Amino acid sequence: MADTKKIIDKLANNDIKLHEIEKYTSDIDEAINIRKKFIESISVGELNHVSNYSIDMNKAIKKNIENPIGTIQIPVGVAGPVVINGEYAHGKFYIPLATTEGALIASINRGCSTISKSGGANVRIIDDKMTRAPALKANSIQDALVVKQWIETHFDEIKKEAENTTAHGKLLKIDPIIIVGRHIYPRFVYSTGDSMGMNMVTIATEVALKFISKNTNVHIVASSGNVCVDKKPSAINLIEGRGKTVTAEVIIPEKIVNEKLKTTSKAITDVNMSKNFLGSAISGSMGFNAHFANMIGAIFLATGQDEAHIVEGSLGITTAEEINGSLYFSVTLPDLPVATFGGGTRIETAKECLEIIDALGTGKVHKFAEIVAVTVLAGELSLIGALAAGHLARAHQELGRG
Amino acid sequence: MADTKKIIDKLANNDIKLHEIEKYTSDIDEAINIRKKFIESISVGELNHVSNYSIDMNKAIKKNIENPIGTIQIPVGVAGPVVINGEYAHGKFYIPLATTEGALIASINRGCSTISKSGGANVRIIDDKMTRAPALKANSIQDALVVKQWIETHFDEIKKEAENTTAHGKLLKIDPIIIVGRHIYPRFVYSTGDSMGMNMVTIATEVALKFISKNTNVHIVASSGNVCVDKKPSAINLIEGRGKTVTAEVIIPEKIVNEKLKTTSKAITDVNMSKNFLGSAISGSMGFNAHFANMIGAIFLATGQDEAHIVEGSLGITTAEEINGSLYFSVTLPDLPVATFGGGTRIETAKECLEIIDALGTGKVHKFAEIVAVTVLAGELSLIGALAAGHLARAHQELGRG
Amino acid sequence: MADTKKIIDKLANNDIKLHEIEKYTSDIDEAINIRKKFIESISVGELNHVSNYSIDMNKAIKKNIENPIGTIQIPVGVAGPVVINGEYAHGKFYIPLATTEGALIASINRGCSTISKSGGANVRIIDDKMTRAPALKANSIQDALVVKQWIETHFDEIKKEAENTTAHGKLLKIDPIIIVGRHIYPRFVYSTGDSMGMNMVTIATEVALKFISKNTNVHIVASSGNVCVDKKPSAINLIEGRGKTVTAEVIIPEKIVNEKLKTTSKAITDVNMSKNFLGSAISGSMGFNAHFANMIGAIFLATGQDEAHIVEGSLGITTAEEINGSLYFSVTLPDLPVATFGGGTRIETAKECLEIIDALGTGKVHKFAEIVAVTVLAGELSLIGALAAGHLARAHQELGRG
Amino acid sequence: MADTKKIIDKLANNDIKLHEIEKYTSDIDEAINIRKKFIESISVGELNHVSNYSIDMNKAIKKNIENPIGTIQIPVGVAGPVVINGEYAHGKFYIPLATTEGALIASINRGCSTISKSGGANVRIIDDKMTRAPALKANSIQDALVVKQWIETHFDEIKKEAENTTAHGKLLKIDPIIIVGRHIYPRFVYSTGDSMGMNMVTIATEVALKFISKNTNVHIVASSGNVCVDKKPSAINLIEGRGKTVTAEVIIPEKIVNEKLKTTSKAITDVNMSKNFLGSAISGSMGFNAHFANMIGAIFLATGQDEAHIVEGSLGITTAEEINGSLYFSVTLPDLPVATFGGGTRIETAKECLEIIDALGTGKVHKFAEIVAVTVLAGELSLIGALAAGHLARAHQELGRG
Repeated sequence: MADTKKIIDKLANNDIKLHEIEKYTSDIDEAINIRKKFIESISVGELNHVSNYSIDMNKAIKKNIENPIGTIQIPVGVAGPVVINGEYAHGKFYIPLATTEGALIASINRGCSTISKSGGANVRIIDDKMTRAPALKANSIQDALVVKQWIETHFDEIKKEAENTTAHGKLLKIDPIIIVGRHIYPRFVYSTGDSMGMNMVTIATEVALKFISKNTNVHIVASSGNVCVDKKPSAINLIEGRGKTVTAEVIIPEKIVNEKLKTTSKAITDVNMSKNFLGSAISGSMGFNAHFANMIGAIFLATGQDEAHIVEGSLGITTAEEINGSLYFSVTLPDLPVATFGGGTRIETAKECLEIIDALGTGKVHKFAEIVAVTVLAGELSLIGALAAGHLARAHQELGRG
Repeated sequence: MADTKKIIDKLANNDIKLHEIEKYTSDIDEAINIRKKFIESISVGELNHVSNYSIDMNKAIKKNIENPIGTIQIPVGVAGPVVINGEYAHGKFYIPLATTEGALIASINRGCSTISKSGGANVRIIDDKMTRAPALKANSIQDALVVKQWIETHFDEIKKEAENTTAHGKLLKIDPIIIVGRHIYPRFVYSTGDSMGMNMVTIATEVALKFISKNTNVHIVASSGNVCVDKKPSAINLIEGRGKTVTAEVIIPEKIVNEKLKTTSKAITDVNMSKNFLGSAISGSMGFNAHFANMIGAIFLATGQDEAHIVEGSLGITTAEEINGSLYFSVTLPDLPVATFGGGTRIETAKECLEIIDALGTGKVHKFAEIVAVTVLAGELSLIGALAAGHLARAHQELGRG
Repeated sequence: MADTKKIIDKLANNDIKLHEIEKYTSDIDEAINIRKKFIESISVGELNHVSNYSIDMNKAIKKNIENPIGTIQIPVGVAGPVVINGEYAHGKFYIPLATTEGALIASINRGCSTISKSGGANVRIIDDKMTRAPALKANSIQDALVVKQWIETHFDEIKKEAENTTAHGKLLKIDPIIIVGRHIYPRFVYSTGDSMGMNMVTIATEVALKFISKNTNVHIVASSGNVCVDKKPSAINLIEGRGKTVTAEVIIPEKIVNEKLKTTSKAITDVNMSKNFLGSAISGSMGFNAHFANMIGAIFLATGQDEAHIVEGSLGITTAEEINGSLYFSVTLPDLPVATFGGGTRIETAKECLEIIDALGTGKVHKFAEIVAVTVLAGELSLIGALAAGHLARAHQELGRG
Repeated sequence: MADTKKIIDKLANNDIKLHEIEKYTSDIDEAINIRKKFIESISVGELNHVSNYSIDMNKAIKKNIENPIGTIQIPVGVAGPVVINGEYAHGKFYIPLATTEGALIASINRGCSTISKSGGANVRIIDDKMTRAPALKANSIQDALVVKQWIETHFDEIKKEAENTTAHGKLLKIDPIIIVGRHIYPRFVYSTGDSMGMNMVTIATEVALKFISKNTNVHIVASSGNVCVDKKPSAINLIEGRGKTVTAEVIIPEKIVNEKLKTTSKAITDVNMSKNFLGSAISGSMGFNAHFANMIGAIFLATGQDEAHIVEGSLGITTAEEINGSLYFSVTLPDLPVATFGGGTRIETAKECLEIIDALGTGKVHKFAEIVAVTVLAGELSLIGALAAGHLARAHQELGRG
């Protein structure tokens, strides 16, 4: 048993660092407890809830966290059932959603119900890949062009080198290879099987780079050159896709639009145009949607996805059309980096939430991506529907006023 | 005591809805338990960890969640201490960070240590506001121009109407008022005191809109017209700011760059140029930074901020310069929507994490924003430093090779 | 009379420079002729047409050109008449258009005819301003914030300094003042009367900067910091406007859509959605229009506007809606930097073309901007109509096929 | 001989249209003259200079213009000589530039002189292609995915169909094929030999589309779907390139920077960072350069390029670095749609200007593109140099003041 008080004093005096506590304790939970006590000593409050965790910190500390003091808790609720007609996800699903935004799950739920009553949502994976694009530099633009051409003509060899590092990753292409002055940004594009693949492609690309660097006169400035583009909003990912590219649609008879959403297809189409197209265009926004981030955030947190990937995952476009007395409504998510094993999906609560939709482990990631897209569809439909209901009500009032 | 089995059967038969369980139970935790059991019945696993929560669900269900089945847990660790020289935050801070990305806290910690050794980070709040921009529509472009001019000439009256709805919110300006054909997008800009302010400005703007609509021939299409821009990446927020606009900087003597980051100011400046500027520019990215989203995500989750706001919060720019034998390094976050009370900060673990940095409750939001910015600075410095260390090592190898 | 051969020999030997010929000749046309002969000596052809100019080069060389060898010729045609119901432009107009793109004028003409038959186009100037945004730098972010606040609190004095330099320019605001690390970008916004105003605002801003620099601890890095934004496509100008911000609309009865454009309102609305919204959104384009640049280019060249301003002038958005059995069609041009005197409007052919629409000289620039917008409306309507006619024809074929 | 007065009266009464004059006249110049007289009758001035043309309107009216009344004149000057070390352009060149912006040619000239003194500019064509991306629509997302897959698996057949229409065009790839809901945007990428290629790829793509449409259940909404992207600024063209992608660089010894540009490498690097990177980033600009549009505009007009292509051609990035006591300076132009025959290069003055640089006709377009890039380099260097000279002078003053 470690001498808690002594360690805390040393921490206070900066004699030992926060990450060194584990050296002095027999197990992780004891170290966490000491670290918690120390943090309480500098806090204006206590850490009673943070320390109320049930997950196995012995595992977490190996892969997911440093200097732990416990866990946070975020409420998780469920929306559904929603009927999904996917290539991988079929049937009725209850969606786990972790959020603190009141009314969000109720709203998604209304979307689920509307979709189900209309026969369910269609959803398809359009593309699936993970990318890494280092920043290279040559001595001159002539040399940069030589490097680009060398990469293009030695693709098979580079592919072999890269794929040596991984059982499941395949290097599909190196494209585009962008040149800016004497800088070179080759975008390595991989298929990564069921994992999200960021680590896999980073390792594979580093080996490939060594090979390229050995054979050409190029300098590797950074293993990631922001053309990947990881965790930042970018046009390249909107255009080319990253992670899973998924589209979901639903066709809703006018009667159901009226009854469930209290509005009309026309009103929904109008709101989508005014808000999601014109409003986004004029404000220089990359999100031609109403609130993808809310649904992506809630399902990502519930299922242990990387919270920083909410940025990429929430990029996308919503369309609405009146067709033959029905509403056609779709969402497109070009850049959905998701996983059903590894990373944060190792955490016990994430596993449990993935099990609710039977999407834990290998072989499930496409099913999971389809469910994510339909969740976004449900939430988007519900909010645009609510805005359109207000729009419609006001239009009637104005007519009465006239 | 409710008859759990009977309710579950009814849920299974769709005779009652997920959100109706509370009608049949005497308290929230019982309802949660029944809902959990039902979800377990359709899950391929159990919900042992999700149900291990300590937070008060009676409070959560009023403001933060619907259809709860428990909570998720995310490991929370601390980085620090980091010395901050802000206008609101002074002294040494330990930063709570909730993440499952291994090595992230260790990396931020290295940044904190480098900053502290260099005398600390300077940080300033540049601007503070919250916006709401509805989508309006007139009958013609002439009418649209009339509406724009009416709003401009009746600002004082509109302000009075809007401010009637709130004790702390002030309508600062309605600017810009963008016209696209006969559509009109007035951007309402408020100061909101210590709350994040989204709800406040939504309510105030709706009252203002009624007033405008009563006095002009305009139709309100949607109370939010995507020019706000909430939870989407946008140029308008990069330019105009939203939430808190914050800048943080540190000046690091070359010796400390060498010792702590194992690299040079020159190498860091090179990497920042190749990656954060050229790479981002050529890929049409709005994030001229390496990984703001990682730090924003981890501190947002720990402290109960809205996860969907990670999208906005992670926009921004990193600069690096060599000055007089030192490294000048800064981060700018134009669009940081944060709060120290209300919303997700009500959750007990969030409160505890805010207390660690003494940033819980009213009067603390500027201090909190400064701490967030310095956390981003620390993480950004550490990653760019690590990339630069690799860059430098390779450059030396190449020299040896030559 | 200068010794042509001798001067040419000296030019060939680099003994004198191209711009020094005027020192050896008695008049401009002689110098031009010698320069032309020298250039012919290094050319693989002759300059018979380039030298066939009628404009007064004595004037041009003072304000518009250096090292002249003559002029180029670009064919100029007219489209029209088009009926315009503007605030400044009323009645029927024939539009001068300089282009080498076959079928462009014929297409614009068809748009003009459709508009006129529908009662004409409505057009309004929404805003009018010119901007200059220098790049400043302070020693630290604290100092940068001090400079920002100093500018805000001393606006009246700065305005006085700036306006001392100009008879017609008024400094409306300095907003936004963007801070990035210790860099500061104040955007000076002026009204400039009838001139395009770039030179006026550059001179006024430089004087203002001297005043700011004298009173604060700020360094002026560059008198233009790319936040103006001059001659580059930018979100800030899409949002805030620059030059003239103009909107034009036309309401076309379905019958006229059918007869003149051989299509339907529905087909036009579909094409506008697929192409101008979805297509532009997904490709990261700032041009939510089909081909504004063609019309802007042709009328800018005919009337002596700055060709580099085609970049800004062609930004904008096209909308199409079906309303009550008619087509509503609009174009919005947020960033139209135009002039009716000064600059290239001094050239004789430009003057003549401006006279065709009675838009030469002071007091005419708003009229001119309205005519430009309607010209864009006509060309855009015609092209979208033509695409929609093909769309409709194919839809009919497909029905027959089914 | 036609009865001029009678025709003019009919035009005035709208009995005949502007484009019908040619029916009543024996030759083009007579028709032009009558049209000119009619336009003079509605003008407030005369058309003495517009009618002073020497080009052959018989040819122009077949390919380049409708309803002509003459030509405009724009002064053309020359900058140079500039030494170019390209793959296609070698030696000393004088650049023809048509502009009315005073001081522009003088400034470019200074850049040329600085480049030449430093041994010349290196320039390379990185890529060369022309694109067309139609907007297609399927009945559902499932069908859209089927269409995408059909195109991918039948590329060879589609290529054969497309290439049947052209002697020189080659279909390189159809990539990306972007799906948004049930909309599909396949980007057809061609090599087009020496022509600019827009017409070629439009015709080839239409034939390919017919083939695709015959074999799949897809509807062609528009032959261009704004993913091409023609004549609009776009991220996709910044990333993927369009037309010629060209990079040019120069390495300037510090001594020459001092003498010719009156500044230092350090000052130029600072200005480039503050203005072209930070300023452009924060204003949401796609132009990470100072004024590419000025040079692109002037050389495009002189040589008969399409004026609307100035929008695309002026996209790009400028870099500046201090290396070993020299300035490294580069420009990258990803999207340069240029031609040396066809289109506006048919006009006599354009031919003459192309002959000055021996770039008229087939087999010359790569040489021409290299010269364009170096012209941009010269102008960019000169302006950034001038801004940096001011920056430096002010810095010295401030030191003196301190």
